[in-house]
Amino acid sequence: MFNSIALVGGTHGNETSGIQLIKNWQKHGIPEQFQALNISLHIANHAALNANVRFVEEDLNRQFTLNGLASSNSSKEALLARTINAQLGPKGASNTDFVIDIHNTTSEMGATLIILEADEFHVQLARYVKKHMPEANILVEDEKPFLEHGYLCTTGKRGVMIEVGGQPQGVLREDVYLLTQTMAEVILAFCLAYNQNTIEADSLPPCEAFRLGENISFPLDENGQRTAMIHHALQDADFEPLVPGMPMFRTFDGRDITWQGEHETYPHFINEAAYFKLDVAFATAEKITL
Amino acid sequence: MFNSIALVGGTHGNETSGIQLIKNWQKHGIPEQFQALNISLHIANHAALNANVRFVEEDLNRQFTLNGLASSNSSKEALLARTINAQLGPKGASNTDFVIDIHNTTSEMGATLIILEADEFHVQLARYVKKHMPEANILVEDEKPFLEHGYLCTTGKRGVMIEVGGQPQGVLREDVYLLTQTMAEVILAFCLAYNQNTIEADSLPPCEAFRLGENISFPLDENGQRTAMIHHALQDADFEPLVPGMPMFRTFDGRDITWQGEHETYPHFINEAAYFKLDVAFATAEKITL
Repeated sequence: MFNSIALVGGTHGNETSGIQLIKNWQKHGIPEQFQALNISLHIANHAALNANVRFVEEDLNRQFTLNGLASSNSSKEALLARTINAQLGPKGASNTDFVIDIHNTTSEMGATLIILEADEFHVQLARYVKKHMPEANILVEDEKPFLEHGYLCTTGKRGVMIEVGGQPQGVLREDVYLLTQTMAEVILAFCLAYNQNTIEADSLPPCEAFRLGENISFPLDENGQRTAMIHHALQDADFEPLVPGMPMFRTFDGRDITWQGEHETYPHFINEAAYFKLDVAFATAEKITL
Repeated sequence: MFNSIALVGGTHGNETSGIQLIKNWQKHGIPEQFQALNISLHIANHAALNANVRFVEEDLNRQFTLNGLASSNSSKEALLARTINAQLGPKGASNTDFVIDIHNTTSEMGATLIILEADEFHVQLARYVKKHMPEANILVEDEKPFLEHGYLCTTGKRGVMIEVGGQPQGVLREDVYLLTQTMAEVILAFCLAYNQNTIEADSLPPCEAFRLGENISFPLDENGQRTAMIHHALQDADFEPLVPGMPMFRTFDGRDITWQGEHETYPHFINEAAYFKLDVAFATAEKITL
């Protein structure tokens, strides 16, 4: 039973679609069909939003580890994380049943639901989302236990992320906005059905999902300068199979660098702006069935 | 006769395609066919590049007015502008014959050559570019005299900008990079032909271009908050005709706002991230023949 649901935008201050959805629902009200749910609306990082940046000092969405929350780190975002944890959490003993945190990406990931656990609840959620929004992608990041993640959404008893793209930082695209709104509404419809015990789990067919693998870095020279860019054949091909031998990078002197994995993989977060300074080119995933 | 040509990237620190082109030509050399030209390569704003931001304190590409250069403004970019003006200029009595400044945009403007004068030289250049790169767009910003612009490229005796998109800030896309490289090479090929007197002006057919009109703002409510986003029919439709009655905005309560101009216009810089804080939705243009 969900007694309290927190819907969050602006965890990253330049990801406009979640921010705009929260602002619009604050102004115009939450859609009528969800009034039976106890939903609170939040803008997480006002300072980053006002500066139109991802974060002011540190990535807010990495501050919510138990160690981080207990540390003496006094960066703006570390302090903000403790305030948010007091409000939505406290993490590990939370007063919020479900935290839905809304993001967008410069990668062409479409509407992606990121779940951090593949237990019965989240499998039902994933199947429900996929049934009611077939164009959605499901990404599973369960490489470590829920509470070990540093994500804001882990302040709730349960937490998920909505990740939609491609959208440049600081820009609002109607297509991305509508996908974001649709996915938020489908997740809330699931919550409603869950509360009303009207989900017939058996009627939800198994669904396709992607399990996070590893980050793949750009090739660098001895001075740490990139020697290649994402190959045009890989650009915008998020969640499409990258088969061994297929090009993934094009070097600046005109050669192709190919995927040398043993198996096909499913790249995502391809050329995400926020990972540019980290020299992360994309993340891999394996295709699974939930 | 061009004795000195300056090719500049990184005037905006998060516009990666020009930065990467300059870095690659610094590392691998300028293409052999242009060795007869006296080309210098420049990264304009290293501090902004290192911070992966457009600018640190003020937009560098607005600092090059004669008044601005003579002022006591001591922002990082105002100071940098004076250094660059001493190196490439001085504006109005320049030692550099031609400054080519490379930018990119989140708008789907393809490869756009921005010229600030429609005199015989620039008309020849525009026609040459259009002939050798038919997919290029020519944008004319001649609403005021060359020296009254605040752009970095006005430090040269002549100056133009390359503007390519769509590319998110802080991201390098191969397609945008290649368009940028092609346009830079076509402009340099024109310079070579100009120096060698091998341009037969009569053989260059008149070309289509767009003359800048005005900026169109997002609709705002009484609190200065946006009430609408770019309509999906206008998004990514840079330089396509927007006819009176066609939708340009979609309000957050679901209505369309249509273009009410007397004539069709040619929007560009649609949903450009850098203009987001200024609430500029797009710029208009009229179609002309050069």
